[in-house]
Amino acid sequence: MSTITHVAFDADDTLWHSEGHYRDAQAAYEQLLAAYIDVADANVHARLLEVERRNIKRFGYGAKGMTLSMVEAAIAMTAARISATDIQRVVDLGVAVLEHPVELLPGIREAVAAVARDFTLLLITKGDLFHQEAKIAKSGLSEWFHRIEIVSEKDVPTYRRVLDEVGIAPAQFLMIGNSPKSDIEPVLELGGSAVYVPYHVLWAMESGQPLPASPRLREVADAAGIAAAVRALAG
Amino acid sequence: MSTITHVAFDADDTLWHSEGHYRDAQAAYEQLLAAYIDVADANVHARLLEVERRNIKRFGYGAKGMTLSMVEAAIAMTAARISATDIQRVVDLGVAVLEHPVELLPGIREAVAAVARDFTLLLITKGDLFHQEAKIAKSGLSEWFHRIEIVSEKDVPTYRRVLDEVGIAPAQFLMIGNSPKSDIEPVLELGGSAVYVPYHVLWAMESGQPLPASPRLREVADAAGIAAAVRALAG
Repeated sequence: MSTITHVAFDADDTLWHSEGHYRDAQAAYEQLLAAYIDVADANVHARLLEVERRNIKRFGYGAKGMTLSMVEAAIAMTAARISATDIQRVVDLGVAVLEHPVELLPGIREAVAAVARDFTLLLITKGDLFHQEAKIAKSGLSEWFHRIEIVSEKDVPTYRRVLDEVGIAPAQFLMIGNSPKSDIEPVLELGGSAVYVPYHVLWAMESGQPLPASPRLREVADAAGIAAAVRALAG
Repeated sequence: MSTITHVAFDADDTLWHSEGHYRDAQAAYEQLLAAYIDVADANVHARLLEVERRNIKRFGYGAKGMTLSMVEAAIAMTAARISATDIQRVVDLGVAVLEHPVELLPGIREAVAAVARDFTLLLITKGDLFHQEAKIAKSGLSEWFHRIEIVSEKDVPTYRRVLDEVGIAPAQFLMIGNSPKSDIEPVLELGGSAVYVPYHVLWAMESGQPLPASPRLREVADAAGIAAAVRALAG
């Protein structure tokens, strides 16, 4: 007999495409900067990431913070030679990420419906409250979720707080997501179960966390494998 | 016998000073723009507010969205003549708002402690998740609150969802805050009670909502009056 009663989905790159839009914005950003600097030489990606890392304590996660970091890094990298018109273009790249239509991953709608037949569903996502709410509304999936938690960090204390508020023990909880650092590791550490569904790209700031070995973890190739993996872990 | 069991506090300009920091940033912004345009003639405040209103659907509430709106409005108002160095200064004004120390309102610590003796406390605040969490942590007040809800909009559906999640009826709920639009009107409409504590300035986007007349509402001059007003409404 399984004790798992509640299954939570991550959102970005688990339910819908996200990181690809950030990468598109950054490619366009590099093109913009090419009018001012030798972008190959400047290593635009590394320098932007450095600014983002420094600013994460000020801005938190999400497209608005990324946009402010892109503006700051562009001014620094061009030694303030960038025109105001091009800075507005940088802001527009961030706005395009914020306003991008939500595209569900293949098979995810069916996976959510299949898991909902046997478990209470939660959605637990990190990032900007306003942008995440907008994407959830646009996704058409919100009705499936008993509860939606938008959090600033997905770590052990955050998962513990959410489980306390829902009123369940870690053994009753299973998390599905694409980030070993945010979706898998803290949930296993707490005593929950997890299904890892890798996405083809992972945000640099989420990378570097190895997948832990655990009998409470399954890895599947894509959304089509989610329901069976959840059932296997639920026994 | 009162049925009120749960009392919620608003945060910005109810627990700590906030709007003043935004006004300081906007005054410095106007000074910056004075190097490019006749600021008296340009009506900087009205034009910035216009950009903010248009962007609220993209950015939501909070300092990061305001900063992006300040950048956009500065570029538009100066016909893109503003230098990159000055745009960085605009970004720094937003960062200063984000990083400003939290200054509690006079008497609020005592008011929170007094209300906590008889009721379960909640904190319900609108705005940027990351910034609000940082301020709550810095305030030293978080231990008093049974539950902290950071929401994107404080309207009837949001209050209904929070009350449902807490598991209480509107008659059991009392809200304390400085905004008729966000803290008072929707709570009274739902059937709850409210204590209105005006702050000396109110954000332009919150203004224009008259205070409703209701036997379930008390107005007090400052934090010192909160506990007695709550007791009076609780009967």
